[in-house]
Amino acid sequence: MAAELTAHQLITQHRPTLDQALEAIRTRAYWSPHPEHPKAYGENGSLDAAAGKAAFEALLGSRLDLGQPGTDDFTGGEVSPYGIELGITYPHADIDVLLPAMRAGQKAWRDAGAEMRAMVCLEILKRISDRTHEFAHAVMHTSGQAFMMAFQAGGPHAQDRALEAVAYAYAEQARTPDTAEWTKPQGKRDPLALTKTFKAVPRGIALVIGCNTFPTWNGYPGLFASLATGNAVLVKPHPRAVLPLALTVQAARQVLAEAGFDPNLVALAAERPGEGIAKALAVRPEIRIIDYTGSTAFGDWLEANARQAQVYTEKAGVNTVIVESTDNYKGMLSNLAFSLSLYSGQMCTTPQNLLIPRDGITTDDGPKSYDEVVADLAKAVDGLLGDDARANALLGAIVNPDVKARLEAAAGLGEVALASREISNAEFPKAVVRTPVVVKLDGAKPDAEAAYMSECFGPVAFAVAVDSATDAVELLRRTIRDKGAMTVGAYTTSEEVEQAVEEVCLEESAQLSLNLTGGVYVNQTAAFSDFHGSGGNPAANATLCDGAFVANRFRVVEVRRES
Amino acid sequence: MAAELTAHQLITQHRPTLDQALEAIRTRAYWSPHPEHPKAYGENGSLDAAAGKAAFEALLGSRLDLGQPGTDDFTGGEVSPYGIELGITYPHADIDVLLPAMRAGQKAWRDAGAEMRAMVCLEILKRISDRTHEFAHAVMHTSGQAFMMAFQAGGPHAQDRALEAVAYAYAEQARTPDTAEWTKPQGKRDPLALTKTFKAVPRGIALVIGCNTFPTWNGYPGLFASLATGNAVLVKPHPRAVLPLALTVQAARQVLAEAGFDPNLVALAAERPGEGIAKALAVRPEIRIIDYTGSTAFGDWLEANARQAQVYTEKAGVNTVIVESTDNYKGMLSNLAFSLSLYSGQMCTTPQNLLIPRDGITTDDGPKSYDEVVADLAKAVDGLLGDDARANALLGAIVNPDVKARLEAAAGLGEVALASREISNAEFPKAVVRTPVVVKLDGAKPDAEAAYMSECFGPVAFAVAVDSATDAVELLRRTIRDKGAMTVGAYTTSEEVEQAVEEVCLEESAQLSLNLTGGVYVNQTAAFSDFHGSGGNPAANATLCDGAFVANRFRVVEVRRES
Repeated sequence: MAAELTAHQLITQHRPTLDQALEAIRTRAYWSPHPEHPKAYGENGSLDAAAGKAAFEALLGSRLDLGQPGTDDFTGGEVSPYGIELGITYPHADIDVLLPAMRAGQKAWRDAGAEMRAMVCLEILKRISDRTHEFAHAVMHTSGQAFMMAFQAGGPHAQDRALEAVAYAYAEQARTPDTAEWTKPQGKRDPLALTKTFKAVPRGIALVIGCNTFPTWNGYPGLFASLATGNAVLVKPHPRAVLPLALTVQAARQVLAEAGFDPNLVALAAERPGEGIAKALAVRPEIRIIDYTGSTAFGDWLEANARQAQVYTEKAGVNTVIVESTDNYKGMLSNLAFSLSLYSGQMCTTPQNLLIPRDGITTDDGPKSYDEVVADLAKAVDGLLGDDARANALLGAIVNPDVKARLEAAAGLGEVALASREISNAEFPKAVVRTPVVVKLDGAKPDAEAAYMSECFGPVAFAVAVDSATDAVELLRRTIRDKGAMTVGAYTTSEEVEQAVEEVCLEESAQLSLNLTGGVYVNQTAAFSDFHGSGGNPAANATLCDGAFVANRFRVVEVRRES
Repeated sequence: MAAELTAHQLITQHRPTLDQALEAIRTRAYWSPHPEHPKAYGENGSLDAAAGKAAFEALLGSRLDLGQPGTDDFTGGEVSPYGIELGITYPHADIDVLLPAMRAGQKAWRDAGAEMRAMVCLEILKRISDRTHEFAHAVMHTSGQAFMMAFQAGGPHAQDRALEAVAYAYAEQARTPDTAEWTKPQGKRDPLALTKTFKAVPRGIALVIGCNTFPTWNGYPGLFASLATGNAVLVKPHPRAVLPLALTVQAARQVLAEAGFDPNLVALAAERPGEGIAKALAVRPEIRIIDYTGSTAFGDWLEANARQAQVYTEKAGVNTVIVESTDNYKGMLSNLAFSLSLYSGQMCTTPQNLLIPRDGITTDDGPKSYDEVVADLAKAVDGLLGDDARANALLGAIVNPDVKARLEAAAGLGEVALASREISNAEFPKAVVRTPVVVKLDGAKPDAEAAYMSECFGPVAFAVAVDSATDAVELLRRTIRDKGAMTVGAYTTSEEVEQAVEEVCLEESAQLSLNLTGGVYVNQTAAFSDFHGSGGNPAANATLCDGAFVANRFRVVEVRRES
């Protein structure tokens, strides 16, 4: 088939971006090619705010026919956490037809080589980037994120993570040359001489199992890492967050076809309500890679049962912040208040347990008792969320009834230092918007431990009274080791405590943010610079993004001949 | 403790070698710093032939006390395949004492950084290299390899593979900088600025489970990859091949101590006869990495049960050579005869199934029928092994009674085209030395398939009659997919057949040698250039050596602070 996008065009347009990404993952300095500001869009083919909103609204109630083989039905039942029914239906696949069809194009995709694959991936990302405003609404109305967060985290930040994965995938494949001449001296005899060729070959079909809260941000790294290493990719979105990944699959299929490849290299596996197809897909022999974000129970099941596949999981963890002392009490409180409030704590990186010595802490504002620290934090959260418009913009909506139920139950676990409030949303009256609850717990009491040693996903923070800094550090160690952690934070002016916390993070493999008091928050990581998770504690078996995340998605096959 | 070996000394001496190794794995051209010729040793502190032999003989009947903590006994019962009892005893460990002791030095080893760890590894390799003659006897009298092969494969080639692993490990860790300044513009406001540090942290204790036939060659990559990435390493040798790895552990402990590190970072776990400690060790929570070479059954067990560890396995496969046509009939026959004879076929890379069209093949010597090809190959093997001294030098000894039993049973599986002969060894009369058996099988017959579709480890080759080149290619595909393959060979002058074979190898992930007729053999791979196994078919889940082999042996922990 005649390609509309030639290799030359793609390389001219995207190779410089790839090179910058390769440089960024080496230096880990700040870099992003994807603008964060909504107003940056609207030129050079990208949709502006109005056009993006219109594009999203045009999707409502429609059938998104991706033209996939084996489509036996259309299905979908997404209801926005903001209350509107999306009414969009997606192809439901006969897997026995779709999977073989996905393999048909693999040889050409493999033979295209690592650079061409990277270029096609970057073109897919460009198309997605152009539709960032449209994606923002799609992410907002599936995850419940507020618009600005859906725009940034679901748009440029997710695209950054995707590009980062492409860069790692390309770099990994480029480590081995395409050919080598091997000449071994044999003293006085003729040397032994071989001509060798090396080719990156894919594992097979990769399965991406998406999540409800960050369909693009968490879905893109695996999707693009697998595609860039030559695999076909089947995307199984969370049934409540299909649209952002369906639009992604649509863009990928379009670009693949335009570049002369089989669009079936990327496909969607939407499911009927309650069908639960992930388990069946995960153990299919054709599926050789799985990327999963979600519950520990299903992540553990995948690791144990999908033995034919490389399995990359991000599961649940219990994130801790140690509050031992600070030289910027106000900065600390406002930073923590923001971290607890952002997206109603529905991030895998949101702090849950704040460990505070029961004898209080030292600050630049004088000594503060445990009760004072908790009360001041409660005030800081209240102040941050005092204005309803601002609260809505920060909190977003509660993503599902389970989170709401957990939030309501949390108040019964201890003394409530800050009660959760209901916030009304003028634009979307049906949205369930709630401020975080802060519950006081005594770290020494076994019944309290049952609460704070479990993940309570949602806007729930536990202010855990501990005996000492040493006690806090040991509890941190135990929490990471037993429960896992995506993030750890600490506030301390003591070099000794800082070193102890750092040592625990090094030994238990957790990512640490120290004394954040400004505009960076423990729950945020930046692509090309920060690692998301470590892959070394129970919260996740992989990190976004490093060599290990990509190196086993392909193998290298060597062919050698006498020269 | 005061280090006798300073970082400066080590870097001055070894950094240039590391840099050359890093360059070699990028170009994959021929390179080795370890001389293959026995006469190259004897200067600059290395043992010459006589001194190496004397050192080995001094070990016989001795107790090799490694000074390990938790030693509750000494044990050992190695009997050389050449008939002599080694009589050497090794420390038997109380694992509950040894494992905690191995962790004591991990922090300092971690904090030393990737470069210093690489330098220490290279110093260990230098000490081992200096003792290559001693190691040669140790490998010979545990594996049964003939002296020259034990010298080369057990010495310089194993050291090359170790250095290759160190180079990959260093490169992988060096991809992330130690520190980064991250400054994100905020329009008119002050930029966000963070100082980030990144540190490679080890998984924990790595377990190396050694094999009988290539204790150093197969044991070193995992050992050095784990050590270079900051892990402590416990070496559990095969009970019949303890000495080479015990000497390795001894050298490592010595160098670690001299460089100021805890020698317990490397330890030996010798076992009492029949104790079978590998299973118990493999599931200990302290063990976070396992490298294993051996049977498919135990490799599969490890992958399924040692879930707390990263498991790298090299298991059994069925290696195929397709003989379809050749323009160098004599070269092909002598190359194949050598491949089948080397170390009595006791290599995981030795061809087992020779697929030959039943209607014969075309050659530069005219058409040859299936029977003629098999008869000519039998003659070539006979010619190669006609002289007893040469036969002994090539075959080595049968490593254990199982191999002998399999060899004897093979004659009953089909028509014997070449019977196995007993060769006497003048120097070691007790050695069991046997030439390979070549058995004719009809590829279309189910009872024949039961034979050729199982690994028959040892000097057994099946000349399998197939219907056509297409039939051969399909049987190759099925064999790789179902049984795995460490190597594939093919002889063909047809571009079409070549492409078909290559495509199968790409699709099933197997390493292919085409039309070898000279001094390189399908069963040999060279470090820095050839991949040993692919990690993509059932024979092995990893390759020696690539990024995937090292990238998951450590994790990177980031600490970020406001600048």
